[in-house]
Amino acid sequence: MTMELKRAHNFNAGPSVLPLSVLQQAQSELLDFQGTGMSVMEISHRSKEFESVIQSAETDLRDLMNIPGNYKVLFLQGGASLQFAMLPMNLRPAGTSADYIVTGTWSKTAFKEAQKLGGTKSAGSTEATNFDHLPKQADLKLDPTAAYLHFTSNETIHGVEYVNEPVPPPNVPLICDASSDFISHPVNISKYGLIYAGAQKNAGPAGVTIVIIRDDLLERVPENLPAMLDYKLQSANGSMHNTPPCIAIYMVGLVLKWAKEIGGLSEVSRRNQEKAGLIYKTIDDSGGFYRGHAKSDRSVMNVTFRLPNEELEESFAKDAKKSNLIGLKGHRSVGGLRASIYNAMTIDSVKVLVQFMKEFQQKNG
Amino acid sequence: MTMELKRAHNFNAGPSVLPLSVLQQAQSELLDFQGTGMSVMEISHRSKEFESVIQSAETDLRDLMNIPGNYKVLFLQGGASLQFAMLPMNLRPAGTSADYIVTGTWSKTAFKEAQKLGGTKSAGSTEATNFDHLPKQADLKLDPTAAYLHFTSNETIHGVEYVNEPVPPPNVPLICDASSDFISHPVNISKYGLIYAGAQKNAGPAGVTIVIIRDDLLERVPENLPAMLDYKLQSANGSMHNTPPCIAIYMVGLVLKWAKEIGGLSEVSRRNQEKAGLIYKTIDDSGGFYRGHAKSDRSVMNVTFRLPNEELEESFAKDAKKSNLIGLKGHRSVGGLRASIYNAMTIDSVKVLVQFMKEFQQKNG
Repeated sequence: MTMELKRAHNFNAGPSVLPLSVLQQAQSELLDFQGTGMSVMEISHRSKEFESVIQSAETDLRDLMNIPGNYKVLFLQGGASLQFAMLPMNLRPAGTSADYIVTGTWSKTAFKEAQKLGGTKSAGSTEATNFDHLPKQADLKLDPTAAYLHFTSNETIHGVEYVNEPVPPPNVPLICDASSDFISHPVNISKYGLIYAGAQKNAGPAGVTIVIIRDDLLERVPENLPAMLDYKLQSANGSMHNTPPCIAIYMVGLVLKWAKEIGGLSEVSRRNQEKAGLIYKTIDDSGGFYRGHAKSDRSVMNVTFRLPNEELEESFAKDAKKSNLIGLKGHRSVGGLRASIYNAMTIDSVKVLVQFMKEFQQKNG
Repeated sequence: MTMELKRAHNFNAGPSVLPLSVLQQAQSELLDFQGTGMSVMEISHRSKEFESVIQSAETDLRDLMNIPGNYKVLFLQGGASLQFAMLPMNLRPAGTSADYIVTGTWSKTAFKEAQKLGGTKSAGSTEATNFDHLPKQADLKLDPTAAYLHFTSNETIHGVEYVNEPVPPPNVPLICDASSDFISHPVNISKYGLIYAGAQKNAGPAGVTIVIIRDDLLERVPENLPAMLDYKLQSANGSMHNTPPCIAIYMVGLVLKWAKEIGGLSEVSRRNQEKAGLIYKTIDDSGGFYRGHAKSDRSVMNVTFRLPNEELEESFAKDAKKSNLIGLKGHRSVGGLRASIYNAMTIDSVKVLVQFMKEFQQKNG
């Protein structure tokens, strides 16, 4: 068979592009996982084969992110959106308040979910300028008695990303929704109380959520939470209080091995910077035809930009699709354009996009 | 290529056997879903391609189960275990109580989760006899003012299954955990207020939970529940408040199409009865070497049985594995043996098991 594989240049914001070699491995063993005569979707989650899948995923994540021994790694369900509720349920004791930095749609949603359940304060917001930059550390209003300080390291919709984490007051744990820049660059885990991420950007398919939590925070978990919403119980059961999302965890495991194989997070980060650099340069060199954010807080993962008018933005997305460049429309809530260039996005696809951008400007500029 | 596919006789209790044709289709299109140049794991959940996946899954489920128009179909995460908490949070108004029939590990766990959150009564329990039969309708203690009556249609661990649903008092909605006999036989949905099921037995891989809920019950949902735990909000958003578990929903869709193609639930049920009949006959004809439940409440999905002693049970499972018969050990909490024979289990595999049982008795009886 010499059928050529047609692959899209996939700029989807999530679910999003996965490494080709990962998909190929999943495909090759889909009917017979490691000689079991069963698909990885058909084996028991209590089998030694699946135990090895979930253990390897944890070990590889620990290696890749250099996670200290006093942190637990959980593989849960429900996406970051369920974490928005689990965080205050587990880690905000009755009568206390938690601080949230609001820098875009996702941190705002996390803030609102926390508000439903109890004391919540805004430690700073950039909503007044449509989330076009990040607040400076000095401008944050931090509660020294807060149960925790929550921030979103990368805002997928608004395209702003932290380079250096905000600094919480002493003894206030820092909590991060890292869904859209998880494992995209090295992070000093010891600065965090908890990091969580839906897998469907950099780490795998939709359907599994990774939570990295510092041991001592588990002591805060109140009695009698619903079992599936209880960090302590999930931790004590190795994320297998019930049947976990096996196929999603398996895919995450393959992606983590791939990230290690290509050189770990420093190499992943170098590639991501190179890809983002090419697109931002095209924006900056366009004489105002393409317009992006203030340079300091630009996302390396989601490059958002505008064209002179919405009609042009419409044709950009349409023409791009004809060139097999997929997923470039901005989020429906904000419009504009967006190139999501997660870990598995190749430099070659980015070069095709940049060439397209230049030609589009020539024709329409 | 003439490599022969080696398939196990997969009697796992869940995750469990999937139809071979379903796995083959998933494999063939894993790198390029419907000409998109992307895997089904890489496309946006807001794309027309995925909209079609989730819509088709719903339509096929409605066809297959003959679901009336006044019921909503949801595809959620967290397994039946998260439903154990969502049910009372959504459908048991403050100050009311809900009735639970306790017939095995799963209904007992559902009962305990509901107890954590408020008023809960046992409407009957068979725990005193180790859940070896189901309570009779006349023996139930039903609260005529209960918020709902909950039962588990098939107890995966104890191997007892309802043929006819328990009958609740007038105006008390009947709620069913159907995780392990979902779409295994025709059901009259109009008798139910809500039916839920983790997919990983009959309907697909682990990672998605199906909820079928009667419209009017959505009016009970209180304000300000966490978004991911709110039936009304999930229903209003077509199960896409956030990114759903796309690959699991896609697989469920393929399984539903397969079930329709082989003749729908009456044919599925006929096959299941035939498979279970072969094993129960072997048990009944064994002169007491194999011992099962009272005939009336025997599960068609999970055939549990004992041998004269635990040593023999141990060798049975071990020898079976050598014959490529996988997953026959009983649940670790109860011991014994168990053959889970869900929809995708072939009659041929069951015949291999029955032959093995006869030979094992000849050698050891």
